[in-house]
Amino acid sequence: MNPADGFNASTHPELIEYLRNFVTAERFNKFREVLLQRTRHLTIALEDIYQSHNASAVLRTCDCFGIQDIHIIENRNKYEVNPDVALGSSKWLNLVHYDNPGDNTTACLNALKQKGYRLVATTPHKNDFTPETLPLDQKTALIFGTELAGLSPCALEMADDFVKIPMVGFTESLNISVSAAILIQSITGRLRNSGMRWQLTPAEQSEIMVAWLKNSIKRSEELVREFYKKKRTGNI
Amino acid sequence: MNPADGFNASTHPELIEYLRNFVTAERFNKFREVLLQRTRHLTIALEDIYQSHNASAVLRTCDCFGIQDIHIIENRNKYEVNPDVALGSSKWLNLVHYDNPGDNTTACLNALKQKGYRLVATTPHKNDFTPETLPLDQKTALIFGTELAGLSPCALEMADDFVKIPMVGFTESLNISVSAAILIQSITGRLRNSGMRWQLTPAEQSEIMVAWLKNSIKRSEELVREFYKKKRTGNI
Repeated sequence: MNPADGFNASTHPELIEYLRNFVTAERFNKFREVLLQRTRHLTIALEDIYQSHNASAVLRTCDCFGIQDIHIIENRNKYEVNPDVALGSSKWLNLVHYDNPGDNTTACLNALKQKGYRLVATTPHKNDFTPETLPLDQKTALIFGTELAGLSPCALEMADDFVKIPMVGFTESLNISVSAAILIQSITGRLRNSGMRWQLTPAEQSEIMVAWLKNSIKRSEELVREFYKKKRTGNI
Repeated sequence: MNPADGFNASTHPELIEYLRNFVTAERFNKFREVLLQRTRHLTIALEDIYQSHNASAVLRTCDCFGIQDIHIIENRNKYEVNPDVALGSSKWLNLVHYDNPGDNTTACLNALKQKGYRLVATTPHKNDFTPETLPLDQKTALIFGTELAGLSPCALEMADDFVKIPMVGFTESLNISVSAAILIQSITGRLRNSGMRWQLTPAEQSEIMVAWLKNSIKRSEELVREFYKKKRTGNI
């Protein structure tokens, strides 16, 4: 079976059919194949990461393991992407920025709670779950703190659970991009081997397919306008 | 049971007893505890890494997961450690540099083969083993290439096996420090859960204990000379 066979455009089917004419068949199949492996069951929230190579490495890891959404809390530090490290991965991800004046940590974590996420703080200082034992029955948001200070008191306070990577050396913490990668690889692996429904819904897949097609086509806005005009006038 | 109880100074017992007077009991116990978790069954070879934050993150990961030896091949790039990323971890590791004029890759990999290591090249371009399926019955050296070009043809040629981290996104490779961390965490976890003898020998533990004590004590060379003088004259 072609791994892309499971994709069905449940919404915007005509727009997707129209836009796919402007990309190669190979690219369209790659989109379908990747979409079937994407998940929102696990999501990532990054609090004030300030080293752009770390921020960018986390995006690249998310793409590689199928995490679609990354929530970026910018209380003090502007989140910047280093293109040499991210290798274009941000183009295929939904980055949600929380960068208003005021407390963006609370805003982000409340938004995640409202969407049904269990908030899991990653910290080397609390013994609770490991990447292997963390329960995955509920949608899970892993929250990472800054390189030096870790998570803010507010984030630790709002967390439902804690996860820690067991370590046996002198250094008490891992680099942030390393820690995120170990957790993401381990947890997405467990999800894929479980019987759970971790995949995107057909509607979510279609929304993202439209966004990816637009990202890949020059003058896509113009083409979309043309499509809707043709549709209105019955020419499509 | 105290986790440090299993440590026995099989060689240099008197020197270790002498030097431990110059560090706190807490530190000495930490040394014993960490030593019992150290391994040479898995080792890491890095070929021409040129970004110091990557090099440093790999050292920190090795310390955190108990890898004692890192082999550093410097054909074109000098291996530099970024102290903000490495957080002092290189102090507790055995770094073996291959930086002679000529082909350091061959020199390093031959040295590893002679020590009984199976050479496993890490590359996203060959389908062979995964971190979960890689056989661990033999001592294993994981070889990593540069950030952009990957492993040299020479390293790929000399490899006994290949390992690849399964990925499902657009980006076809992970950041080098991320890739190393996922492999190291997964493989050391499997080793610790196996019935295999992955630990250092008592003689290796003693050698490293002496090195760590020396690293932690000011004027340690002087103290060691004093110790041998006392020993010769029968005062110890």
